[in-house]
Amino acid sequence: MLQKIKVIIAYDGTNYCGWQKQKDFNTIEGELLKACEALRWESPIIVGASRTDAGVHALGQTATIEVDTRIPVDRIPRALNAHLPDDIIVQEAEIVDEDFNPRFDPIDKTYRYQIHNAKMPLPQYLRYAHYVRKPLDIEKMREGAAYIIGEHDFIAFSSAGGSSKTTVRTVYSCDVIQSSDLINIEITGNAFLYNMVRKIAATLIDVGLGELEPIDVQRILESKDRAKSSPKAPAKGLTLVKIRYQ
Amino acid sequence: MLQKIKVIIAYDGTNYCGWQKQKDFNTIEGELLKACEALRWESPIIVGASRTDAGVHALGQTATIEVDTRIPVDRIPRALNAHLPDDIIVQEAEIVDEDFNPRFDPIDKTYRYQIHNAKMPLPQYLRYAHYVRKPLDIEKMREGAAYIIGEHDFIAFSSAGGSSKTTVRTVYSCDVIQSSDLINIEITGNAFLYNMVRKIAATLIDVGLGELEPIDVQRILESKDRAKSSPKAPAKGLTLVKIRYQ
Repeated sequence: MLQKIKVIIAYDGTNYCGWQKQKDFNTIEGELLKACEALRWESPIIVGASRTDAGVHALGQTATIEVDTRIPVDRIPRALNAHLPDDIIVQEAEIVDEDFNPRFDPIDKTYRYQIHNAKMPLPQYLRYAHYVRKPLDIEKMREGAAYIIGEHDFIAFSSAGGSSKTTVRTVYSCDVIQSSDLINIEITGNAFLYNMVRKIAATLIDVGLGELEPIDVQRILESKDRAKSSPKAPAKGLTLVKIRYQ
Repeated sequence: MLQKIKVIIAYDGTNYCGWQKQKDFNTIEGELLKACEALRWESPIIVGASRTDAGVHALGQTATIEVDTRIPVDRIPRALNAHLPDDIIVQEAEIVDEDFNPRFDPIDKTYRYQIHNAKMPLPQYLRYAHYVRKPLDIEKMREGAAYIIGEHDFIAFSSAGGSSKTTVRTVYSCDVIQSSDLINIEITGNAFLYNMVRKIAATLIDVGLGELEPIDVQRILESKDRAKSSPKAPAKGLTLVKIRYQ
């Protein structure tokens, strides 16, 4: 019987060209398809909630797999993991209604952008954090982050190439959390434009460095001009933390 | 003029066969020697404080380099880092007395053993933590850890192959710290026997799993029998955190 299985997937994106299946390149969706094939699942249909870019990590990516299988759903994570590489691990699986759509049904998504701020980098952080040598002013970053919260047209904090009809999004929270030499920008919103978190992170870093004032975040938002925000911060600092559904 | 330079080095040990120089294998000391060579330093003499094993990481390994160089000491970290791979980074350098010996002069050393305890592993933790699926009883681990503290003959928590004359060591603290699905065993002592932290970690994990009782830690200590302690926990969970000198 055809079933729709919702899976939560964690991955280290370092060695992948992003989520979406591509010919000739290793991707997360591609590896998932190979695992389905190894389980002899016929023509599985996979839909991912978020098309993470090359090098971006996930703790709570969500996808559905539509497939005809007799494996009980509680054994599906282990069955898939047996055929997935060590840097992609299915955390949970559950059966959902056939009309459930992981892309369009989320209540909100949370991303984390991690910065390693120290005089000298620690190699242990470099895989999952963007290194910034000059000291960042956390208080100013928090002031800047406050302007992000709310419903805005975020076009200035996006890159061309997104597929959305509107560029209005709602950010529910944007916290700057420091823990010794790691700084996390944690941002929750109803949805995100292409490169939105990385452009916001880069702009807040520039605020922290004193190259921009906190109020400039609002000015950039209001300008609706992509060239006004800072160039996107590197992929490796970004992690898709979780996606919430009803 | 010949100088003795003390350096603090952080490294991700994943890709190295330990600290000590070996023919035909990549090691931390070997990479450091190559960096010295690239700087055209003649016959540098390197002494490391701790001969970390293959796969073990460090945040605060300490070594001395005896060399004749004109590079000002505050520029030495950057000079060496320019020739070191990304997973080995010199953090600090200072000139020390010629009689300073990083191996024999420490007041104490701190190691951390990191455990990832969750129903399903997160790939982001697997590089620097040992994964344990079954839930660990932290309170019991703490009870067991308390028996480690103090001056004891730690021979039962060591592997054959160490070079020390005595197997008596003093452990000043042994804390079990939980932060969601990561558990750190943080242990500070005047010195450590070969594999001592990994044998203690493995034994405390067995206490946490209920396979041993906390009081068994004391019984194992008193037995002075290496076969009584648990087989050493995997290298990747171990990090040399810091070494303190007078």
